[in-house]
Amino acid sequence: MEIHKRDLRDLEKRDPHRLIKITPIGIIHSPLKRLKGIPIQFKMSDIRGKIEIFEDYLPGMKDLEGFSHIYCLYYLDLVKLPIPLQSKPFLVDDKKGVFSTRTPFRPNPIGLSILELEKVLQNIIYVKNIDILDKTPVLDIKPYINEFDAIRATKSGWYKGHIRKKCS
Amino acid sequence: MEIHKRDLRDLEKRDPHRLIKITPIGIIHSPLKRLKGIPIQFKMSDIRGKIEIFEDYLPGMKDLEGFSHIYCLYYLDLVKLPIPLQSKPFLVDDKKGVFSTRTPFRPNPIGLSILELEKVLQNIIYVKNIDILDKTPVLDIKPYINEFDAIRATKSGWYKGHIRKKCS
Repeated sequence: MEIHKRDLRDLEKRDPHRLIKITPIGIIHSPLKRLKGIPIQFKMSDIRGKIEIFEDYLPGMKDLEGFSHIYCLYYLDLVKLPIPLQSKPFLVDDKKGVFSTRTPFRPNPIGLSILELEKVLQNIIYVKNIDILDKTPVLDIKPYINEFDAIRATKSGWYKGHIRKKCS
Repeated sequence: MEIHKRDLRDLEKRDPHRLIKITPIGIIHSPLKRLKGIPIQFKMSDIRGKIEIFEDYLPGMKDLEGFSHIYCLYYLDLVKLPIPLQSKPFLVDDKKGVFSTRTPFRPNPIGLSILELEKVLQNIIYVKNIDILDKTPVLDIKPYINEFDAIRATKSGWYKGHIRKKCS
């Protein structure tokens, strides 16, 4: 994308505190109808589900089927703000800062799951590894690309030794 | 996090088309002051920069320093909406659907970079691999955890054979 040739907002008039408005582009269809029993991470789920992309965005789905995995960004719309900035996660007994956890209860409750793409039919993306509640609004879909995304982290902080399969 | 015991919005009153309001939690400080010359992916950058988390969110940074990599979600605030749903990416000559590309020009222009965390001092996160314009608003920080996130994709769609180091 030739960024610098595009029509852009004015670089001089940016305001980092500006309220941002986001419109969902789709919705999750998942067998997870209640909060209890949701896998705490997509990697720990083999549940199948569907992402319905709203019809207006159908042209944006061209060529998506060629990928084995996608990022799904979604809005955890059940979270009541503000949330506490520290709390006790599932896996350990003391309070952690929200930015060092993967809790859905975040100042901006944006969820991130890497889902296995099974097929695309019209505006429906069939996926596996779902850890997302039914009817959750979808914000973005991006292809997952090994060359960009498959990082080998050397330190996993307080998670080290504390990861086990669990549901909410 | 014991999700089902938390104070939540009403499951029956959800509206997937509802406009979502997001407030930035921080701002990027980066040597990338202009759009021209920005690496097209974080994996292709060894540029250092800082994420300033606004003071209100300081308690949320507890325990962050233990991680070698973080996800940074940010808002590409220079993008003028609406964007075209198909366009020609850097790497190939035909038009691709926006959801099969990593272009910043997306219906919800939310950027995702996996950054190497060098150190945390107060409310400042020192990072490497920056591919983000200076003064970009930050939406969320999440720890990157191999056990969850290091996926090995089997298909990388139209990107296959087309990835090379390039700047915008």
